[in-house]
Amino acid sequence: MNVVNRIDSLKQAAFKEGKLDALLIFNSANLIYLTGFTGASALLIPKEGENTIYVHNVNYEQAKVEGKVFRVELVKRNENPMAKIAKQMKGFKIKNLALDALSIEDWYALAKEAKGEIKLKAQRNVVCELRKVKDENEIALMRKASALTGEGMRVAYETVASGVREYEVAAEIEYAMRKQGSYGTAFETIVASGSCSAFPHGGCSEKEIRKGDLVVVDIGATYKFYRSDMTRTLVAGEPSEKQTKLHQTVKTAQEKAFEAIKANVKARDVDAVARKILADAGYGKYFVHSLGHGVGLEVHEPPILGPNSKDTLTAGNVVTVEPGIYLVGYGGVRIEDTVLVHKDGAQKLTNGPYTLGKE
Amino acid sequence: MNVVNRIDSLKQAAFKEGKLDALLIFNSANLIYLTGFTGASALLIPKEGENTIYVHNVNYEQAKVEGKVFRVELVKRNENPMAKIAKQMKGFKIKNLALDALSIEDWYALAKEAKGEIKLKAQRNVVCELRKVKDENEIALMRKASALTGEGMRVAYETVASGVREYEVAAEIEYAMRKQGSYGTAFETIVASGSCSAFPHGGCSEKEIRKGDLVVVDIGATYKFYRSDMTRTLVAGEPSEKQTKLHQTVKTAQEKAFEAIKANVKARDVDAVARKILADAGYGKYFVHSLGHGVGLEVHEPPILGPNSKDTLTAGNVVTVEPGIYLVGYGGVRIEDTVLVHKDGAQKLTNGPYTLGKE
Repeated sequence: MNVVNRIDSLKQAAFKEGKLDALLIFNSANLIYLTGFTGASALLIPKEGENTIYVHNVNYEQAKVEGKVFRVELVKRNENPMAKIAKQMKGFKIKNLALDALSIEDWYALAKEAKGEIKLKAQRNVVCELRKVKDENEIALMRKASALTGEGMRVAYETVASGVREYEVAAEIEYAMRKQGSYGTAFETIVASGSCSAFPHGGCSEKEIRKGDLVVVDIGATYKFYRSDMTRTLVAGEPSEKQTKLHQTVKTAQEKAFEAIKANVKARDVDAVARKILADAGYGKYFVHSLGHGVGLEVHEPPILGPNSKDTLTAGNVVTVEPGIYLVGYGGVRIEDTVLVHKDGAQKLTNGPYTLGKE
Repeated sequence: MNVVNRIDSLKQAAFKEGKLDALLIFNSANLIYLTGFTGASALLIPKEGENTIYVHNVNYEQAKVEGKVFRVELVKRNENPMAKIAKQMKGFKIKNLALDALSIEDWYALAKEAKGEIKLKAQRNVVCELRKVKDENEIALMRKASALTGEGMRVAYETVASGVREYEVAAEIEYAMRKQGSYGTAFETIVASGSCSAFPHGGCSEKEIRKGDLVVVDIGATYKFYRSDMTRTLVAGEPSEKQTKLHQTVKTAQEKAFEAIKANVKARDVDAVARKILADAGYGKYFVHSLGHGVGLEVHEPPILGPNSKDTLTAGNVVTVEPGIYLVGYGGVRIEDTVLVHKDGAQKLTNGPYTLGKE
């Protein structure tokens, strides 16, 4: 990661209007993005002056090695970190600060230490505009995470069967991803069978998969901080006519939405493509979530593909496309890929069969 | 989980002074603790009136099934949740509200909607005092999580060897835990070898373990939301005299600190037992973190066992005991168990060998 370039881009964007003279970063994904490692508790980026990371004793030695391009400030056990940061900000003559995230208590503690000399502004999305557009290095990591996720899904197709417990399927999936190099799951694995598959967040329990169950498998690997996200829906055994019809409808919605993706398209218009197909088939009210979300250092990040989204897609966005139909008491179907937005179209990063079971 | 009893206890504690007439919960671990499921975005507990959970469309059907003891309010796609909550609070005649966590933007949005009619107070620890003392059901789940963690550690002892990559060890550990019923890892598995073992958060990478490396293995399973935490340090091959001495010192510090634990002891006094042993052996400055922390729904929660802790231990606390020595450029040793505090002593929930390798 070239964190110096990222910070330069961030400074250009944040300081161009002349309203701010420093950024203070606390959100952990933003910290990884801007420092390249975990362990910094805060990052101060003054318009003029040294970029400074604040670390606790437990991470200090690691920060000195991995955070070489920063000034590294140790926050000692007895120190009030907000007082320390405020004092240094005054040293940098900072008057107008934006910060990305903080607990309410720490927000007031910082305001107290700033003593009216520094104007604080909470700006949740201060780093998001940058993070939304992935660079080549990030895309390479997300391709790797997606390939690992595809391996997990291959194992899901081999493993889902009546008599197997949901967590046993999850164990095999996660093992396959991990053994090939995944750094861990991108989120809690979902293997939701039967009536649980009708809940979008149906979890993964000790429940035994029964013959004829719909089984929603929603998984993701992480590779060097970057995540992937993929869902397939399987049937344990022979699918019924109804299951096949549901699945076909979701598959068409997913395909057509995918085909609608390219730079400069409004995210809500992509959502609308899938939503219309499901509505026309009579399932409009059973599609109870947005079509998709950005993925990267976090599994849910901007842009959002939903009916109220204000985002316009840009080349370099990585988003999910995941329509679903959820019939309470019966079961659910969802199909999802992680997709890279290009100037003239899109490319799937996750790959795998779109069938209801082994072919 | 008997969430009704928990809410009753919480109400008794929070409302006894007469300063508050409602609690508003947003923190996800607190929400699981008080609702028994995931999916609620907020929980309003008025002194008088119905306990109400706020859910988004994606979780609404699940909440109706799993949140039966609550009034379930759907937050529609176009609705401002803070406006909705504020309006209902006024309906309950709420004047003084404490809330546990909220983004700064949402805090101000809620304050705006409250329009001076409701006094808001941020009180991060409002549910923690309850969560610190585990009930029998929680202890049973933590025993299970700890037993699964022990299985993972057994596999670590079988797997750590020169030529094996750190993530390959992690893959085998996580698979063993998952296959026996773990719901996932309690935190990111650490398998940190050689010089990386000198960083307490040394991670787990593609690095190949080399002969003679110290290898810190810090792992945890989750069982039905409850977590466990355990560390052992191994050597790939024959330990050197220095490694054996470091390990023996940490082992003694861990044993003696464990023996000092019982109800009504100050948490900082337990920390001091371990810290003194390490200091007397000449390693004081290389023990760069607190002795331990509470574990439960979160892997780090109160009480804290550190030099500045204000906590006093209580029967039913579950805490880690994890002294370490970290020699930058050489390697580190940490030994950790998850421990249940009793009236007259303590009991280890995690179990396993304290050796530097297979015996």
